[in-house]
Amino acid sequence: MVSDPRFYQLHAPVILGELVGAVNAKLAHGSPDHQLEGVAALGSATRADITFARSSKVLKEISQLDAGLCFCSPDMVEPLKSLGVLAIAVCDCPVAAFNMAASLLVQPRQNNFHDEAISSDAILAEGVLIGPGACIGDGVQVGKNTIIGPGAVIGTGCIIGHHCHIGANAVIGFSIIGDRVDIRPGAVLGEAGLGIVMSEQGMLEVTHFGHVRIADDVRVGSITTIDRAVFGETFIGERTKIDNQVQVAHNVTIGSDCVLAAFAGVSGSTTLGKGIMMGGRATIIDHIRIGDEVRIGAGALVTKDIGAGEIWSGYPARPLRQFLREQVSLEKLAAAKGNKQNGK
Amino acid sequence: MVSDPRFYQLHAPVILGELVGAVNAKLAHGSPDHQLEGVAALGSATRADITFARSSKVLKEISQLDAGLCFCSPDMVEPLKSLGVLAIAVCDCPVAAFNMAASLLVQPRQNNFHDEAISSDAILAEGVLIGPGACIGDGVQVGKNTIIGPGAVIGTGCIIGHHCHIGANAVIGFSIIGDRVDIRPGAVLGEAGLGIVMSEQGMLEVTHFGHVRIADDVRVGSITTIDRAVFGETFIGERTKIDNQVQVAHNVTIGSDCVLAAFAGVSGSTTLGKGIMMGGRATIIDHIRIGDEVRIGAGALVTKDIGAGEIWSGYPARPLRQFLREQVSLEKLAAAKGNKQNGK
Amino acid sequence: MVSDPRFYQLHAPVILGELVGAVNAKLAHGSPDHQLEGVAALGSATRADITFARSSKVLKEISQLDAGLCFCSPDMVEPLKSLGVLAIAVCDCPVAAFNMAASLLVQPRQNNFHDEAISSDAILAEGVLIGPGACIGDGVQVGKNTIIGPGAVIGTGCIIGHHCHIGANAVIGFSIIGDRVDIRPGAVLGEAGLGIVMSEQGMLEVTHFGHVRIADDVRVGSITTIDRAVFGETFIGERTKIDNQVQVAHNVTIGSDCVLAAFAGVSGSTTLGKGIMMGGRATIIDHIRIGDEVRIGAGALVTKDIGAGEIWSGYPARPLRQFLREQVSLEKLAAAKGNKQNGK
Repeated sequence: MVSDPRFYQLHAPVILGELVGAVNAKLAHGSPDHQLEGVAALGSATRADITFARSSKVLKEISQLDAGLCFCSPDMVEPLKSLGVLAIAVCDCPVAAFNMAASLLVQPRQNNFHDEAISSDAILAEGVLIGPGACIGDGVQVGKNTIIGPGAVIGTGCIIGHHCHIGANAVIGFSIIGDRVDIRPGAVLGEAGLGIVMSEQGMLEVTHFGHVRIADDVRVGSITTIDRAVFGETFIGERTKIDNQVQVAHNVTIGSDCVLAAFAGVSGSTTLGKGIMMGGRATIIDHIRIGDEVRIGAGALVTKDIGAGEIWSGYPARPLRQFLREQVSLEKLAAAKGNKQNGK
Repeated sequence: MVSDPRFYQLHAPVILGELVGAVNAKLAHGSPDHQLEGVAALGSATRADITFARSSKVLKEISQLDAGLCFCSPDMVEPLKSLGVLAIAVCDCPVAAFNMAASLLVQPRQNNFHDEAISSDAILAEGVLIGPGACIGDGVQVGKNTIIGPGAVIGTGCIIGHHCHIGANAVIGFSIIGDRVDIRPGAVLGEAGLGIVMSEQGMLEVTHFGHVRIADDVRVGSITTIDRAVFGETFIGERTKIDNQVQVAHNVTIGSDCVLAAFAGVSGSTTLGKGIMMGGRATIIDHIRIGDEVRIGAGALVTKDIGAGEIWSGYPARPLRQFLREQVSLEKLAAAKGNKQNGK
Repeated sequence: MVSDPRFYQLHAPVILGELVGAVNAKLAHGSPDHQLEGVAALGSATRADITFARSSKVLKEISQLDAGLCFCSPDMVEPLKSLGVLAIAVCDCPVAAFNMAASLLVQPRQNNFHDEAISSDAILAEGVLIGPGACIGDGVQVGKNTIIGPGAVIGTGCIIGHHCHIGANAVIGFSIIGDRVDIRPGAVLGEAGLGIVMSEQGMLEVTHFGHVRIADDVRVGSITTIDRAVFGETFIGERTKIDNQVQVAHNVTIGSDCVLAAFAGVSGSTTLGKGIMMGGRATIIDHIRIGDEVRIGAGALVTKDIGAGEIWSGYPARPLRQFLREQVSLEKLAAAKGNKQNGK
């Protein structure tokens, strides 16, 4: 997967043997002459991508892998070979080696700090208004009649559509934003999320190579955070309305016409369908799938996939009826005990 | 209800017939010559206000309505007429028609982006200190010895009392703030809240015509959000102390001498009395009334009105004693089952 | 305890008799000629410190107190004398008297608002990059190759190590920050926390005399808040990774190699050991001790100390196994009741 060149400097192609040598790994399978271009997760890597395998657990239920180069520990060479991985490099800490090799292929563009806060390289359409103290990076494109509030910071390469409103002191980077999008003050979009991999060298943070994409007519509340993807994109669908102080983690996909109330939280790689309502402070853990038109109660903690049209609530969340029935049962149980203790 | 002219441009009076025609509605009752001045919720609209009725459900328990003009669907004409509404306009989507008509009566004042960050039109009393990069809009008034931190943004028309402290990068709009108020960095006050009305045209956002009022000696923590009212005001009473990362939604009223710990959330149109303590992450859903001196436990989710002086906790919240009794009952039940399974 | 002179102006020494007189207290024990230098909590005050005693409850389990001067109500004179307090001043509202007396010893340095946003007094090492609109206070020191984003505000006296990254619009004050620290946009560090003491004069806010210290290689997510200590320091240990929208209250100590997921909250004076994982939205109330390598589930509310290596979850939190067993018991109970009601 080739990272978006608006946000990343790409050094492709790089020769496989050079990559492996530069990170002190050992080529256990494949040709050192192969050329590599991008980075990807193990399951979606193509022959032009480097990737890594954390443990043999991740290979369950996989029948084929097309990665161009995979970093792994010695015990994983044979299973990966049999799944079709083109080249395999062995090392003590696959994540660390991958991160280092990836930085030779792809690097985030730094925001250049010019003397002028608005880069002369930015393309601002007719009718764009920019508040005092706003900062616009190199290569930014802003569509007509968009208003960028005072103190807002738009990072290198961002695309913002027409008739958008970017609130004061919002900070936006690594983002492609549609038309008529309303982003409120203090929102932060496009930062790398927090992904931790345990390695022999201790905790390693997962490097991010992706971006954020916001479809048309989306609303993002004040002081909401939307992290960019590790690979690919974090996506918010058309007309979805997000309230204040919401957190959307890396690689989340949210469909169109959803409503996320204040303090809602969606953890990494979770996917929401269309027309979903999340109550205030509702939380969904990582790698969950939520079907269309689902309603999640205020304060619920969702730890399982939910099918289309269902209503869930509770901690942890369960179907609403079950939750209510359990509440009543518990209430009666406690009342009965109370009666006994009172000698009735 | 006439919106505050500090924050809104008022085009009143507007002739009823022109309003109805401009939004392609059909006058079903009343005189086209009546003059209108403001906007209001159905229940509080006067003869000078336009309003809308979402559904016949909202008419239950209402014996009289004084609105000057009400937008509604065809089936509601007769019930509204019998409640005394002066004029009625029929249309497919009453909310959309109301929003459009309202914009002909009332429009939020835009922040003008001058070359200078501090408007020459702002009135700054003696001893006011303004940090580098702060942005002060037209018509702003700031009382003596108030300090406005670096990067703070004060929107058009805001009133800030004396001896206040506005933190760095705070964003304040549509707000009237008392004396000795302490607002911490990154707080966002006065944005339109998230109100959604389902219509035949899909989700519609509720337009906001109100403001925020903060009484004397209030403290607002870092990165806290307080949304302005749809109509009228969101209000925080004297001496109330609000911690970091709290959310106060539109049309909330909070009495004096309350304490809201970090992450507390108060949903739309909820009313809190005096001397209330909300623990960390306590949440109250919308349209709830909380009596004086109530204490709400950390993490509780309040879904019902609570009478004065009570202590509630739990998810959903219930009286503390009941919550504790239920916890003990559940613990014993599980322990008993565990013993059985262990053959005891 | 002498407050850090980087952040506070110290007027020490001050003669005891002058302090007591200035706040209209009455010296009930000790010599008016003693010299005082700092402020501290009752339990950690030395002979050079002033302090206060709220109520006789706080004296339980204390066998000796070394304070130089303690403000208290008349009934506490004898118990404090017998514990060894050097001098005792009696007054109606000990907290108010202490706050006033403390301000004669120690005062926070105000940020001076120069015409230039970057103080000429700041010491910036080689390779430091500062974004447009950033504001750097007097006496700030920044290590080599550190990047400070656009609009970031670094308050008077802060120390920032080398190779750090401070995100756009972050606000940092009263903080000592190590090397390779990564602070994301909109984070707010070093504000006074919310501490309330009830007095006869109503609620009084606790004045803060401490600072924040962040060790090397820490990551602080976007829009996270870390409050400074009342006395001493709020501390984040090496390599600890904090996600977005986390709240760390005053006087918290967090050990090395911890992970705090989004919305995690740690209340005042709570201490976390090393290698702790807090799930998303996990909350710990105040004055709790969490042992090394503890894991706390998403959304849990911790109200008790937890020993090293344990796994807890739930509301309120309990050992994970117990929590799961209770969930199963409740589910079965409700299902059984449901069957009965259905005539089965």
